[in-house]
Amino acid sequence: MSSPRTSAPTIGVFDSGFGGLTVLRALVARLPRARFAFIGDTARLPYGSKSRRTIARYAVESAQFLVREQGAEFLVIACNTASALALDAIQEAVPIPVLGVIEPGAAAARAASRTGDVLVIATDATVQSHAYASACRAQGLRAIEKACPLLVPLVEEGWTSHPVTAEVIGIYLDELNAEAAAQGLHADTLVLGCTHYPLLRPAIERAVPAGMRVIDSAESAAEAAAHLFHGRAAPLSSGDTPPTEIRCFATDSVEKFERLGSRFLGRPVGHVELVDLGG
Amino acid sequence: MSSPRTSAPTIGVFDSGFGGLTVLRALVARLPRARFAFIGDTARLPYGSKSRRTIARYAVESAQFLVREQGAEFLVIACNTASALALDAIQEAVPIPVLGVIEPGAAAARAASRTGDVLVIATDATVQSHAYASACRAQGLRAIEKACPLLVPLVEEGWTSHPVTAEVIGIYLDELNAEAAAQGLHADTLVLGCTHYPLLRPAIERAVPAGMRVIDSAESAAEAAAHLFHGRAAPLSSGDTPPTEIRCFATDSVEKFERLGSRFLGRPVGHVELVDLGG
Repeated sequence: MSSPRTSAPTIGVFDSGFGGLTVLRALVARLPRARFAFIGDTARLPYGSKSRRTIARYAVESAQFLVREQGAEFLVIACNTASALALDAIQEAVPIPVLGVIEPGAAAARAASRTGDVLVIATDATVQSHAYASACRAQGLRAIEKACPLLVPLVEEGWTSHPVTAEVIGIYLDELNAEAAAQGLHADTLVLGCTHYPLLRPAIERAVPAGMRVIDSAESAAEAAAHLFHGRAAPLSSGDTPPTEIRCFATDSVEKFERLGSRFLGRPVGHVELVDLGG
Repeated sequence: MSSPRTSAPTIGVFDSGFGGLTVLRALVARLPRARFAFIGDTARLPYGSKSRRTIARYAVESAQFLVREQGAEFLVIACNTASALALDAIQEAVPIPVLGVIEPGAAAARAASRTGDVLVIATDATVQSHAYASACRAQGLRAIEKACPLLVPLVEEGWTSHPVTAEVIGIYLDELNAEAAAQGLHADTLVLGCTHYPLLRPAIERAVPAGMRVIDSAESAAEAAAHLFHGRAAPLSSGDTPPTEIRCFATDSVEKFERLGSRFLGRPVGHVELVDLGG
């Protein structure tokens, strides 16, 4: 059945797991009449500890699935690690606009910071890529990045408001603030450079020094995407199109995705379809 | 150059990451004149949160690499999750003897326990498979299993003797002991059902009730393998063969393997070769 062109375009959203559902949640809030196809490459997560070559190969396969199989006309890379290490490779591999989460996060940090000095917490691979430091430098900011590899497992264990999690956040932020001070930075802004971290936002806000602004790159990316897509796709803001349609796909562990995903999306994820990308 | 048949046979050792190096370490201690080929499927780790189907496919690819490319004549599955979910699939896929870590762990628990009631801590996937409970039941034991998903990230963060790790271990063991008591078990033995956990052994031994025995399935598997291999391969115990030769392979993140692997192996892992299994 061919659908008339008056239907809303499909926005493809890609993550290594289901953390990117925090980005989808922020997108849905801004583009309530769009159609979304989300894929989590759960068979091969986490990307955070893998090499650039491997991450790029995996990410391109997911992007191609969203374009070829789901007809995506826009693509949001809702994964900091893939944005950091594979945005160029994805942009080369698919013929549609592709937006990552790093640049919008850095732009939001610039808008928030008065001192021009910012802190970034993220996964190992994102930090090792120094993608946030580069994006911040392009915005005229100085940035110090820190890998916090325990935070994703703590979120996935469901310990978002557990005392152990507060303790781990405190340790990481103390180390980060000490390093920033040692390098002469006067940081007033903290960027959450991983899509799992918004679930820890209350605990993180309690742990940061008074007056420090916390930037959620998921929110920043959704804001940038909505701006971009509104400019290109008039039907998105029209009342003639049907309400939000979300289809979720995963390369493995559909049950875990369905069970944990609603925490990230803020509503039930419904049925998650299993796809095989050949990995 | 063809090597004469008097050379020691190659023992293939497979893990999803480098945790299985604790098994290799125990094997080397018992079979100092064998040749070892170890592969860590680091591009696709961790297996602990993936489905049986995916784990079996990945594990078979690594097993075939060890047999076809490295000439392994024996195979040790040094990964609890792969042993729990893919041992049958691997045994069908390769024409050599294959030993996992679950059965030896259960056998060691039987030898250690006086009450016949044991506790098992492991990854999500290992626990969900109930492979330890089945293997313990076959030994006439009652077993309660608990997933401890934070312990692997804590080991990989290097926090093996950190107060946070002691706290997390305490929480997990309290929950496990409470559940065992609620079910009327009088457990006197704890099985470490993950190859990362031997690095936490001192902290775990401080946390268990007085008198509880701690069984390391890596040690148990190495013991069983040495017994099996000595029976089949005379050159292993002969003084004519060269000293231990270890070749390590990884499907990704060779740098991380080389950096962290020595902690698990108890000596430098040396050069780790990158292989592509197509995933």
